[in-house]
Amino acid sequence: FLASHFTIQAQDPLPSWNDGPAKQAIVEFVQKTTTEGSPQFVPLTDRIATFDQDGTLWVEHPMYSQVMYCLEQVPAVVKAKPELKNVEPFKMVLTGDFAVIAKLPKKELIKILEATLTGMSVEQFQADVKKWLATAKHHRWQRPYNDLTYLPMQEVLEYLRANGYKTYIVTGGGQDFVRVYAKQTYGIPTEQVVGTAGGTKYGYEKDGKPFLTKEPRLLLNDDKAGKPEGIHLMIGRRPHAAFGNSDGDRQMLEYTKAGDGARLCMLVFHDDADREYAYGPAQGLPATKVGAFTQALYDEAQKDGWTVISMKNDWKRIFSFDE
Amino acid sequence: FLASHFTIQAQDPLPSWNDGPAKQAIVEFVQKTTTEGSPQFVPLTDRIATFDQDGTLWVEHPMYSQVMYCLEQVPAVVKAKPELKNVEPFKMVLTGDFAVIAKLPKKELIKILEATLTGMSVEQFQADVKKWLATAKHHRWQRPYNDLTYLPMQEVLEYLRANGYKTYIVTGGGQDFVRVYAKQTYGIPTEQVVGTAGGTKYGYEKDGKPFLTKEPRLLLNDDKAGKPEGIHLMIGRRPHAAFGNSDGDRQMLEYTKAGDGARLCMLVFHDDADREYAYGPAQGLPATKVGAFTQALYDEAQKDGWTVISMKNDWKRIFSFDE
Ligand SMILES: [Ca+2]
Ligand SMILES: [Ca+2]
Repeated sequence: FLASHFTIQAQDPLPSWNDGPAKQAIVEFVQKTTTEGSPQFVPLTDRIATFDQDGTLWVEHPMYSQVMYCLEQVPAVVKAKPELKNVEPFKMVLTGDFAVIAKLPKKELIKILEATLTGMSVEQFQADVKKWLATAKHHRWQRPYNDLTYLPMQEVLEYLRANGYKTYIVTGGGQDFVRVYAKQTYGIPTEQVVGTAGGTKYGYEKDGKPFLTKEPRLLLNDDKAGKPEGIHLMIGRRPHAAFGNSDGDRQMLEYTKAGDGARLCMLVFHDDADREYAYGPAQGLPATKVGAFTQALYDEAQKDGWTVISMKNDWKRIFSFDE
Repeated sequence: FLASHFTIQAQDPLPSWNDGPAKQAIVEFVQKTTTEGSPQFVPLTDRIATFDQDGTLWVEHPMYSQVMYCLEQVPAVVKAKPELKNVEPFKMVLTGDFAVIAKLPKKELIKILEATLTGMSVEQFQADVKKWLATAKHHRWQRPYNDLTYLPMQEVLEYLRANGYKTYIVTGGGQDFVRVYAKQTYGIPTEQVVGTAGGTKYGYEKDGKPFLTKEPRLLLNDDKAGKPEGIHLMIGRRPHAAFGNSDGDRQMLEYTKAGDGARLCMLVFHDDADREYAYGPAQGLPATKVGAFTQALYDEAQKDGWTVISMKNDWKRIFSFDE
């Protein structure tokens, strides 16, 4: 009684959330895992929470931000290597016609990703991403991408950290890409970003200074089964809470839920075409290639006791710039 | 003046160190990087220190502890697969004749490593290592391996952490192996152990519970150039301090030293046959296959301003059980 009374009295840690089962699930999880003497108490060192990024922490439609980065880097790539000007898919991307570019076959897209994500030094890549982020804008909102993080999820990150949880990003996106802005955008340091990762190669500049070059060699495809594998590789312990939004997060949530004691598994469901986007194909929403949430995932959530967050019903505000 | 005066007054953070250039280098580094207003002040979030394990934090002679683990697991492996009883190298290892076993060619040793480090679930492996650690003893001291950590280095770990440094192990040893005992032995959580790492494979038990199986697929050989590569992969930032003891640490120290501002690079030199071991081949000490410290490394240390720690001269006590 005292514990819950205290919570009612205390300032609401999740002011952008409507009262409902999703908000309640988060608050109850934090209370029972952090209250000394609670049968489901989790020691400080075991408080690990993992968050998918695209579609869970920020907007992923109509296209992942990292893909936008790669496409928008193409002019610079062609400037450095003019021989690519008339070579596909570079030629087509240079037209800037996004309706056409959106239909690039995966094989062609990979050529763009390789040309813009590998071959340069780690420092050069970081500088390029930083520069892009400072000027690039999402086409719909005409705002920088890191304005487009979900305020309710930022509150969850803060709330968990205030209660001793170490918050990780576990993303299918590029680890090096997300690390550039994770601290500034989410308060998450580089070592707590697990993502799709390629190898690097150690070498020396002419003056003897060592540096690392980004290689196309894939070490970790941090999607689907790659998420628990990445969590094991980079964290080494099972999370107590995991947040995702698509079929790519299924295994991460299963792995989290299979641990002993209290576990919190949540999926953001994009059912709000007015304020953001609506896509499934779960529950009859339009299908998508970017962040699909299938009916099978929806059914598994019901069956396994994961909570589906309805963007439309559970979130009072979506962005910090919303009225 | 005030800062150094305060330090003289305060309790000595490194009581097992003799006064000398090594101890002085550590104390000065901590002071100048953590004193507000110091021109070499390092913000809290950038305070990263990396430590090699074998030969830097604990004894590595006559053989790496993990290799001892693998060899001592062979009877259990053969019990589970009796057909291996008469197959080399298992047959030879079963004799328990360590003089012979020590001469196993690398190709044969790898068969032992694969059989004892891969193929099982992550949980099973952790349980096996835990069980081994509780009973295994180092032949010379007849003590558990985690008694054989160097007290002066434990003091450095504590001292750095007390000053806001995040301490990492960056080891050529198996990441999963070291993680089992790193918290208990060094106060270092699993996510701060970077080591040689293999892939895992996600699957389901009969009851649907997901688990990860350790695979022989190598992701990271965390030795030599693999150390900075592993640091980039797992930490994502350049350390401000790095500690090693052999040629396998050269690139980690170069990479650390090449950063801006104050950097501390140190190498433990095993020149104390009485209290521990003496091996080089640097400075005319006997050559070894286990943790070689070459003259070239010694020379690079002098040239680049790294500090060589003389176990004999710099360490008052080596183990916590020393008088
Ligand atoms: Ca996602
Ligand atoms: Ca070593």
